[in-house]
Amino acid sequence: MQITRNEMKIFTGNANKVLAEKVASYIGMRLGDITVGRFADGEINVRIEETVRGHDVFVIQPTCPPVNENLMELLVMIDAFKRASANSIAVVIPYYGYARQDRKAKGRDPITAKLVANLLTVAGATRVMTVDLHAEQVQGFFDIPVDNLWSFPVFLETLSKDGILDDDAVIVSPDVGGVKRARQIAERVGLPLAILDKRRPKDNVAEILNIIGDVKDKTAIIVDDIVDTARSLVEGANAVKNAGAKRVIACITHPVLSSGAVERIENSSIEKIYISDTIYHQSLPSKFHVVSVAPLLGEAIIRVRKNLSVSILFK
Amino acid sequence: MQITRNEMKIFTGNANKVLAEKVASYIGMRLGDITVGRFADGEINVRIEETVRGHDVFVIQPTCPPVNENLMELLVMIDAFKRASANSIAVVIPYYGYARQDRKAKGRDPITAKLVANLLTVAGATRVMTVDLHAEQVQGFFDIPVDNLWSFPVFLETLSKDGILDDDAVIVSPDVGGVKRARQIAERVGLPLAILDKRRPKDNVAEILNIIGDVKDKTAIIVDDIVDTARSLVEGANAVKNAGAKRVIACITHPVLSSGAVERIENSSIEKIYISDTIYHQSLPSKFHVVSVAPLLGEAIIRVRKNLSVSILFK
Amino acid sequence: MQITRNEMKIFTGNANKVLAEKVASYIGMRLGDITVGRFADGEINVRIEETVRGHDVFVIQPTCPPVNENLMELLVMIDAFKRASANSIAVVIPYYGYARQDRKAKGRDPITAKLVANLLTVAGATRVMTVDLHAEQVQGFFDIPVDNLWSFPVFLETLSKDGILDDDAVIVSPDVGGVKRARQIAERVGLPLAILDKRRPKDNVAEILNIIGDVKDKTAIIVDDIVDTARSLVEGANAVKNAGAKRVIACITHPVLSSGAVERIENSSIEKIYISDTIYHQSLPSKFHVVSVAPLLGEAIIRVRKNLSVSILFK
Amino acid sequence: MQITRNEMKIFTGNANKVLAEKVASYIGMRLGDITVGRFADGEINVRIEETVRGHDVFVIQPTCPPVNENLMELLVMIDAFKRASANSIAVVIPYYGYARQDRKAKGRDPITAKLVANLLTVAGATRVMTVDLHAEQVQGFFDIPVDNLWSFPVFLETLSKDGILDDDAVIVSPDVGGVKRARQIAERVGLPLAILDKRRPKDNVAEILNIIGDVKDKTAIIVDDIVDTARSLVEGANAVKNAGAKRVIACITHPVLSSGAVERIENSSIEKIYISDTIYHQSLPSKFHVVSVAPLLGEAIIRVRKNLSVSILFK
Amino acid sequence: MQITRNEMKIFTGNANKVLAEKVASYIGMRLGDITVGRFADGEINVRIEETVRGHDVFVIQPTCPPVNENLMELLVMIDAFKRASANSIAVVIPYYGYARQDRKAKGRDPITAKLVANLLTVAGATRVMTVDLHAEQVQGFFDIPVDNLWSFPVFLETLSKDGILDDDAVIVSPDVGGVKRARQIAERVGLPLAILDKRRPKDNVAEILNIIGDVKDKTAIIVDDIVDTARSLVEGANAVKNAGAKRVIACITHPVLSSGAVERIENSSIEKIYISDTIYHQSLPSKFHVVSVAPLLGEAIIRVRKNLSVSILFK
Amino acid sequence: MQITRNEMKIFTGNANKVLAEKVASYIGMRLGDITVGRFADGEINVRIEETVRGHDVFVIQPTCPPVNENLMELLVMIDAFKRASANSIAVVIPYYGYARQDRKAKGRDPITAKLVANLLTVAGATRVMTVDLHAEQVQGFFDIPVDNLWSFPVFLETLSKDGILDDDAVIVSPDVGGVKRARQIAERVGLPLAILDKRRPKDNVAEILNIIGDVKDKTAIIVDDIVDTARSLVEGANAVKNAGAKRVIACITHPVLSSGAVERIENSSIEKIYISDTIYHQSLPSKFHVVSVAPLLGEAIIRVRKNLSVSILFK
Repeated sequence: MQITRNEMKIFTGNANKVLAEKVASYIGMRLGDITVGRFADGEINVRIEETVRGHDVFVIQPTCPPVNENLMELLVMIDAFKRASANSIAVVIPYYGYARQDRKAKGRDPITAKLVANLLTVAGATRVMTVDLHAEQVQGFFDIPVDNLWSFPVFLETLSKDGILDDDAVIVSPDVGGVKRARQIAERVGLPLAILDKRRPKDNVAEILNIIGDVKDKTAIIVDDIVDTARSLVEGANAVKNAGAKRVIACITHPVLSSGAVERIENSSIEKIYISDTIYHQSLPSKFHVVSVAPLLGEAIIRVRKNLSVSILFK
Repeated sequence: MQITRNEMKIFTGNANKVLAEKVASYIGMRLGDITVGRFADGEINVRIEETVRGHDVFVIQPTCPPVNENLMELLVMIDAFKRASANSIAVVIPYYGYARQDRKAKGRDPITAKLVANLLTVAGATRVMTVDLHAEQVQGFFDIPVDNLWSFPVFLETLSKDGILDDDAVIVSPDVGGVKRARQIAERVGLPLAILDKRRPKDNVAEILNIIGDVKDKTAIIVDDIVDTARSLVEGANAVKNAGAKRVIACITHPVLSSGAVERIENSSIEKIYISDTIYHQSLPSKFHVVSVAPLLGEAIIRVRKNLSVSILFK
Repeated sequence: MQITRNEMKIFTGNANKVLAEKVASYIGMRLGDITVGRFADGEINVRIEETVRGHDVFVIQPTCPPVNENLMELLVMIDAFKRASANSIAVVIPYYGYARQDRKAKGRDPITAKLVANLLTVAGATRVMTVDLHAEQVQGFFDIPVDNLWSFPVFLETLSKDGILDDDAVIVSPDVGGVKRARQIAERVGLPLAILDKRRPKDNVAEILNIIGDVKDKTAIIVDDIVDTARSLVEGANAVKNAGAKRVIACITHPVLSSGAVERIENSSIEKIYISDTIYHQSLPSKFHVVSVAPLLGEAIIRVRKNLSVSILFK
Repeated sequence: MQITRNEMKIFTGNANKVLAEKVASYIGMRLGDITVGRFADGEINVRIEETVRGHDVFVIQPTCPPVNENLMELLVMIDAFKRASANSIAVVIPYYGYARQDRKAKGRDPITAKLVANLLTVAGATRVMTVDLHAEQVQGFFDIPVDNLWSFPVFLETLSKDGILDDDAVIVSPDVGGVKRARQIAERVGLPLAILDKRRPKDNVAEILNIIGDVKDKTAIIVDDIVDTARSLVEGANAVKNAGAKRVIACITHPVLSSGAVERIENSSIEKIYISDTIYHQSLPSKFHVVSVAPLLGEAIIRVRKNLSVSILFK
Repeated sequence: MQITRNEMKIFTGNANKVLAEKVASYIGMRLGDITVGRFADGEINVRIEETVRGHDVFVIQPTCPPVNENLMELLVMIDAFKRASANSIAVVIPYYGYARQDRKAKGRDPITAKLVANLLTVAGATRVMTVDLHAEQVQGFFDIPVDNLWSFPVFLETLSKDGILDDDAVIVSPDVGGVKRARQIAERVGLPLAILDKRRPKDNVAEILNIIGDVKDKTAIIVDDIVDTARSLVEGANAVKNAGAKRVIACITHPVLSSGAVERIENSSIEKIYISDTIYHQSLPSKFHVVSVAPLLGEAIIRVRKNLSVSILFK
Repeated sequence: MQITRNEMKIFTGNANKVLAEKVASYIGMRLGDITVGRFADGEINVRIEETVRGHDVFVIQPTCPPVNENLMELLVMIDAFKRASANSIAVVIPYYGYARQDRKAKGRDPITAKLVANLLTVAGATRVMTVDLHAEQVQGFFDIPVDNLWSFPVFLETLSKDGILDDDAVIVSPDVGGVKRARQIAERVGLPLAILDKRRPKDNVAEILNIIGDVKDKTAIIVDDIVDTARSLVEGANAVKNAGAKRVIACITHPVLSSGAVERIENSSIEKIYISDTIYHQSLPSKFHVVSVAPLLGEAIIRVRKNLSVSILFK
């Protein structure tokens, strides 16, 4: 019997349709026809409107806020694709929600990032693609292949074009947790490194923000993976400014921007903040400069599909 | 080494704390100390505030609206209990959300009720207790033990006390899907059965609601497991009334009551509606009469704990 | 190295070779060469007589009586195909035995339909195709794709050709359990619905069969998925006839026909009974009219193989 | 809350109730109340008639002929115990059917003994106890604990009492496959070993049975694990007799005795055959001497239950 | 039947018998009797010399060099305990080998730390206890409970007793990867933090070691989790010394000390190095000061066994 | 999108590069580029140096001594291939280490051959190819397809060419455990069989080696699957010689040759020993004749790849 080779289809839920459209457009395909709605009681209602039987499916869905809604949408879609006989189901999660809950910091914490990995796997995902994981160890939470894409080439190209990476610049990590990431960038662009370390010297004494390293008269580029409430980012930016930095730039992959973050940044010493579009915001003040990861995701999907190396993108 | 026997603890999330308190109180225990909150970005923040190491844990959490939030709370709690070395984790889900999505009605539907079963199991649940499953087959979606409790003894006791189960009464199923449940009740109380069947005779013709069976001059008791938007319930009640029923009573286990349901019922021919407290509503109009399943759940938990038969409760 | 694309092969055991031959013939293939016999002690002896390495295998085997023999044959065949390196193993089970044991009706019942799903999966099945599942929820007992084909287009075509679906007809469900199926048919052909409800009014009083709905002077078409002992079917047919039905037709997918069923039907008010060939009977009296599901299965297999939609067959 | 310690219960299906009764009686318990019947269509109908919630269950059921019926009975019982919340389910399979299909002898054979192990495990068994496995490697087909009991102490005690183990005796393996078992016995009782080797010297020439080792004027004790059709046993016995053996005794654990085996043995040179009661036969000719393994099984169950060593029974 | 409560037993392989003895002695038990040897061809030969049936087993075995031998010993022991019917198998791995391979740093790296987690789990481990994991995220590589003990209370007590934690001291992280750990210590003892950052300014230029933060005239305490070749530790120590540190102390949990590490440290600016006994060294020069984690492990095992909180040890 | 068909690549670790090269060369491919080294502390360092995304990977690695090192190398490679998105991972293990530990010979033994099967499967192997398994039942330790190749055609061709298989020859099994293998060879070449049986007649009496069968004036060909210390082989050879054998030839698949085996053979009555190259030895004395299994493995890989029957190679 004459048979058809497995074809590829791309779908998305409601988390970031704009990004999904851009990725599909980069690849030169249209998004697959799917309904991802809600019943009256809030239960998710998924209906795949075209056949996926035997197809290789890619689902683009960051698990950004509202995180539980977006995650459940993704899981229900995966279940539907599996039962509709998709040949493989690659989940593209540009922003991996719950990634910060990656260990038991206290004795009886959940490890929700691992829970999420288990949920995706049991639902039927066969491959994961994501961008700038909070901790690279989250790759090991999966036993299916994970491609963790790095956004730095995209950011560095823009920063460079904007003339920010001059010899006066210093890469700043806003806390000790982000040092590894900051150092990676610093090394790649050949700039020095400074680290902010917030500490409470004694009980009943206010916290002090120490700057380890030199920022005086420099362009301080604060780099991080996530900006959530922006409290510590803004605090750090102000401290760096007070310590004599010429100007303060922020460069952060995932703009969660919850509860007043945008205003906080607007009113801060930060001159300009570069963010990606892994999380969608309809409109942002002019300080915010969005760099799209759609070409990065699109290129990676093409390479996965063609059985070519993805790691070569970051060499 | 002298060692301690496994003790039992009961916890709850935010879905229905009032019910959980009642159940714990019935058993004669206090609820365990746990924080189930949200981070600024909406991610669930679970912290177990007392040791559960080696304990047999019961978690009471219906997955009622907001269903995705309540379900994820439950999953994160299970993950935390598992990693905190609980000996066993029984999840008590008085209302099992997504239960109606229990089959592929159309070609590429998800089977979300099965997905939920898989999520609970992979998170680490070791046993499930629930009330009046929409389809009893959902028990088979699990390979861990499931105790599906029936609420009818609780309801029938109240209906009987209220003098509703007289010889003039007829049990009415609001659609063909609920016939089995309605018949079970009808048989137990020795009353006749009527069935509502909504049908569109031809295209472009309005749907007609046929009443199969006799309701004239009777007390029509509409029984069902779930009242969601209450649209078909109210439509059925009115049809039954128009067909000559003396009075119309509704008796429904799970009061989802989404989007205008309460008003719809208030303005309907329904004289009185009996619901359980598997789903919490702060205040409801006087037509609504809440029957608590807390003693039922409490008794079942005690019997599970003491290795006694649970099925005996329904003989 | 030049390599060969995965080819497809179809095999069968002893449960229904005639149907398997018809399906293969519809597709235009021959059945694969396999020995499925018994050793002297009754153990099943499977020998695959041609290579299946890298092939997509379809195994056609209803689990009709003798159910345990046919089920074990199927499991041993699956194990053999798996170890012989088949690329995929689709099991085509036109009649799914044990489907009626799909829930814990009493406290300590097995859920054998789920057990069977687990056995098939652990043996190595990668996909299931079946016809008219007793409860559609059984789909959710699997986490591999399930295609539940509906036989009604095949039956309705024949009934229509035989002039039975006239305006005088009424669709009858022989018990409340079958109402959903009966209603589906009724709605599709635009006919009214009647339901039989057997009840014991009081202890020590004989059961009474109530007819809910109107059958007088009509062609009563009793529809169901399974006819086993035919006791309740015949009882229902007689009751319908006594209630004034003009003629009684039965239309039932799976003819289990155990222990005297054929005689019982012969001696009943049933004028004609339509059954499918999911279960093979060498010869049946003239009241029995067999409608073949081979074209339905063949078409579905072709569509699965060509990665086309199967659900489109039922629109 | 005061709680009850896990109790133990013993159940059986229809495969060998007599043996199960004997084992229970040895332990000083009664068999648990369970119905294991058939529906009209031959499907297995299991109903556990007493609570097993939280109990440690032992199920005694050899998978002797009819092997598929007995195996499915066992699987359905396990499923029922699991869903009825048994704390653990130990399956006691005195005769493990399909044990001889333990490898791919030819290219596309199933490995049914492994399939059976997988079926038992997925159904929910948590421990296996068996007697004289055909190949000890079958233990490794499981990842749950397996206790393979050896019957030789029971047999040797009887043979010794009957005066058969004199200095003139020789242990005979009826084929090369059984040499290891025969040698084990031979070494333990300090007797020489002989081996029968059936071979076809050339194509179109009849098979010849070579006797490797010396049997002349000796009491030849043929030992094996299974007697099925008894063809090769009888052939071997006759060959040994023809080679000058004084008398021929057989000593075989599992009496499958299919299709004419009893007659074949009656008409052979075998003077006396010792078998165990792992498989039940209502009546057998006087040549057959049944040795009960009930005390062995009973003792092992007690030791398992008391957390004592079982291996000590064979030292 | 009178039955025995599950007892506890402790075993060890060859990786660190001295530590295992100390732990057992702390708990007041003897080590269980087990042979863990080698066959002539180097295959591991495990023989458990006393019953473990129904017991709760703890196996103490760091996977230090020779890592593959020690890991395989542990896996074979676990398999043996599982098949010998142990009730639970807790593996105590004071040093978790391969922990540094916890992510795909380059495109086609293995994640060996996750592989090891999978191997332990599939072998049958039911719980893990370890000390100072290289990355805390490794906890999430498991779905069985993991207790990651922190050694800092043990070290800080000793450092304090030795008068090293004076106001002049500074905590030094030898590279950016260790900053989080160093900061945790620094915060707890209220000391400042310095970080070493090795960088190659341009291609073909030697690497330079920058000191971020102030060490002049201070007691520099270099803290880390693992000392392997000691190359970067010694390099860092010398740089700190050159930068004017008064004295240089090292404090490192796991002394891998491979290929010349001991000599390198002896010849360095390090005045004293504190290490634990998670890895055994028969004799070390006087610069090395061993702090035992045996009381920590012993206390934790007791608390696990008694169902008490372990996290309380670090408050 | 135009896509590329899955290609095949072959890799090897350090266990037997010479054999791997020969196999690749037979197939007409080069070995894939991979680094399999050690870090300073002995941890395995795997780096795949070319893309394997979507490829069908074959890894050739016998688990010969040093068995734990070679096994861990194989496991780490599999993990790396899995995470690098290989489409399938076939492990070719010409010599399967630990195969002799295939059952619980004593009460609390591990079944390490099964443990190894579990480790390979959990790491991500999707298929196994091996040669002359010690017990064929080890196939059933896996649930992925296993191709157990037989080396006898290769050996028999060489023996025949060397004129050893004359009418005077007798096949000798060096112990009862190897009888089945010996008999298989004997039957195929139409030669008689003899068996060596070592026994201790009484306590405190030296073991005696009985020869069951006739070897006088014959060419005794001792066949076995593994030669390890060669102690019993040499003892057997000498016994056979003393019993009058004309000459003694050995023919053994896997030359483990541990601890003095080579010298022992050199000083024995064995005239010539045929071994395969599943295990690599740089140089061996002239008594040793190496027969390569590379063409056998190469041919089998080609047939697997082309979806052709492998079993046909042994007909």
